[in-house]
Amino acid sequence: MQRITNLLAIKDGKVLLLQKPRRGWFVAPGGKMELGESIYESAVREFQEETNLKPKNVHLKGIYTMVIKNGDTVVDEWMLYTFIATDVEGTPFVETREGILDWYPVEQLNDLPMAAGDRTNLLFATANQGMQYGTFEYTEDFELLSETIQHSIEQN
Amino acid sequence: MQRITNLLAIKDGKVLLLQKPRRGWFVAPGGKMELGESIYESAVREFQEETNLKPKNVHLKGIYTMVIKNGDTVVDEWMLYTFIATDVEGTPFVETREGILDWYPVEQLNDLPMAAGDRTNLLFATANQGMQYGTFEYTEDFELLSETIQHSIEQN
Repeated sequence: MQRITNLLAIKDGKVLLLQKPRRGWFVAPGGKMELGESIYESAVREFQEETNLKPKNVHLKGIYTMVIKNGDTVVDEWMLYTFIATDVEGTPFVETREGILDWYPVEQLNDLPMAAGDRTNLLFATANQGMQYGTFEYTEDFELLSETIQHSIEQN
Repeated sequence: MQRITNLLAIKDGKVLLLQKPRRGWFVAPGGKMELGESIYESAVREFQEETNLKPKNVHLKGIYTMVIKNGDTVVDEWMLYTFIATDVEGTPFVETREGILDWYPVEQLNDLPMAAGDRTNLLFATANQGMQYGTFEYTEDFELLSETIQHSIEQN
């Protein structure tokens, strides 16, 4: 089962997003975990590889079960781990084969084209304390079929 | 890839542990995620099935990459998600085919027989704010070969 980590850097009211070439959709930089990595190590490594930046104050905000369906048949299932960072160090790439990187006002997460589940996850990560959990069901063409969400906050 | 959730209930200075029949080792109640579940749903369901209790204030505390090695060869890899709850509702089972359930003073997590990685995870969950991440390498006989740990706290 695939494990994917991504990381949303949030700084001075802006978020660093990658516009992917294929659909023009926006994503938080990330990618596939390697064998034996922790999810934290994967999120930091993938972010550095895709942006040339070192993320600071990295913290997990969401864990999602991603289900791809063709009709009633489940054709794929994987786990998505979404982190934030509240600062970065270095000079970011502008364009790579992964897409075009830029900072956008946080509010634009409401409108920029992206997978519906990504919008749920990234808006949660920027605006809420605690951790989000859930399951997203998609078609093979990434139309959202259903989302089920839970949320928890640490008790002090 | 297998995904396992467990949940440590902590109440009035005690933790609810399950003593497994095979080795006599102590664990937090848990088990395998089902297809399409979120990790939160799995942790709550498995805890209820194994204890007959409804956990309250459920929150994720740790995510671990578990690697089983035979010499230099990786023979298995799975993900472990460790939750806490700060209260429970209901009357717990005493003994099931899973083992014997009982409440133990939190301090006994230092001494009760258990997998070395479980001790690291459960002690963290009872004593620290924030989230723990890491990788544990074990032999097939569950001797700990290595542990690598990271930790993060949410910025306010």
